[in-house]
Amino acid sequence: MKKIESVKEFGGYLNRYRHSSTSCQCEMTFSVYLPPQAQQRAVPAVYWLSGLTCTDDNFRTKAGAQRYAAELGLALIIPDTSPRGADVPDEPERYDLGQGAGFYVNATREPWSGHYQMYDYITRELPQLVEANLPLLAGVKSISGHSMGGHGALICALKNPGAYRSVSAFAPICHPVRCGWGETCFSAYLGDDRSDWQAWDATQLIEAGATASALLVDQGTVDEFLAEQLYPQDLDAACAAHGIPLILRMQEGYDHSYHFIASFLGEHLAWHARALGAGV
Amino acid sequence: MKKIESVKEFGGYLNRYRHSSTSCQCEMTFSVYLPPQAQQRAVPAVYWLSGLTCTDDNFRTKAGAQRYAAELGLALIIPDTSPRGADVPDEPERYDLGQGAGFYVNATREPWSGHYQMYDYITRELPQLVEANLPLLAGVKSISGHSMGGHGALICALKNPGAYRSVSAFAPICHPVRCGWGETCFSAYLGDDRSDWQAWDATQLIEAGATASALLVDQGTVDEFLAEQLYPQDLDAACAAHGIPLILRMQEGYDHSYHFIASFLGEHLAWHARALGAGV
Repeated sequence: MKKIESVKEFGGYLNRYRHSSTSCQCEMTFSVYLPPQAQQRAVPAVYWLSGLTCTDDNFRTKAGAQRYAAELGLALIIPDTSPRGADVPDEPERYDLGQGAGFYVNATREPWSGHYQMYDYITRELPQLVEANLPLLAGVKSISGHSMGGHGALICALKNPGAYRSVSAFAPICHPVRCGWGETCFSAYLGDDRSDWQAWDATQLIEAGATASALLVDQGTVDEFLAEQLYPQDLDAACAAHGIPLILRMQEGYDHSYHFIASFLGEHLAWHARALGAGV
Repeated sequence: MKKIESVKEFGGYLNRYRHSSTSCQCEMTFSVYLPPQAQQRAVPAVYWLSGLTCTDDNFRTKAGAQRYAAELGLALIIPDTSPRGADVPDEPERYDLGQGAGFYVNATREPWSGHYQMYDYITRELPQLVEANLPLLAGVKSISGHSMGGHGALICALKNPGAYRSVSAFAPICHPVRCGWGETCFSAYLGDDRSDWQAWDATQLIEAGATASALLVDQGTVDEFLAEQLYPQDLDAACAAHGIPLILRMQEGYDHSYHFIASFLGEHLAWHARALGAGV
């Protein structure tokens, strides 16, 4: 991996890297915030998965996360949302399919399957890469995300018991097989057999027996996508039925934007810091 | 003024307004963050002046300011950086002249003078407008800004003794008559007689006797514009010669970006909150 940018922020460094991804078969870009503590010792990491249309830039620019990470001694690992490049299949007229919309699954259908292996990238390749090259505590990681990335965080944790010390999400797509965004991407990436979709849907994973120590989810009540795309009530019901502690906080008057994320991100990062044993 | 957008953030509201400006003779857009405390009582305000190329969007999106403002009970008033619109003179090929580059002066030369009256807009029209329409403590205000906006904050305070309870700046253009950005805009907006420029230059205003209770300035040491455009050493020398307390902090390793601003904005807003008597 090659460092292509480095900016000092809150005493640490916000870096951007590029590397050739074996999972995605293309050049991938990601950002990492290394808190000041990382200049002295290895630190735990929180992975952040962004939503539709995002790159690694949105979260690093708009969430206000670096202040908390510097206070808590957390690294932030901020990947892109899909494979990228002229050789990578895309639907340039659509914001919700193709580049910018990898949905954190491993695609099985052409033309997507050659590059769209974001699940492997996030859960295997990227952790190995950053833990080998940066002052990170090996295997000491948590995961969070927003919207499509909230879905991604939930499935990465549910499908890998023990791999993440904690998981949280902002306005996640809780039940993608039931919503337009999920149906669009799953039918393209996974094919029309809906039984193949279950392994990539947080609500269905829990209904099928997947477990997690606890889930923290914030959801704004005036989120413009709440009614049609997100279905936190389905996740709530599945967790209740299967004994998974879900802290679902309906945040009155908040929308789907980064202003919502910024408002509660400090509490999420503090939650992850406790699970990670982080500290100054 | 018409509210065109409202987003909840940190318990308060980040609003955007549009109005017909008498100073600038065009429709102007600005943002205001009203902290949670403003739902109960009038609050003091900090005006933020942005730099070249910015609109009201940059600061509200990238600085992480709303968290501090909510904690401190401060309103943030975030104007645009120039008059705008198809009828407003511009140099569309240039980022450092015309729209996005008002330089917070009152232009005296055609074709600029009909619209480019940003000094009057910032110091008179906008405070009157927002104090008449929002839960703000009349006249209880401070000012800060970045780069061209840092210059703007300094001259607004120096030219209006008593109007601002406190003033601070990030990487301000301290001596615009000496640098390329300042020379470009001042010669266009004010004409070629350099004696007319002095009234719009912080260093020269202080040399001519302008006073301020104290100035807080942060400047990154690896700022890519430091050597050619900013000249904090000239402001420092003028303040020293004229007995103005200047807290000039050279911040090791920081650049000119919003990551630099974000890193120290909390300290600036706390400084302003003390001067404003703000509190929860």
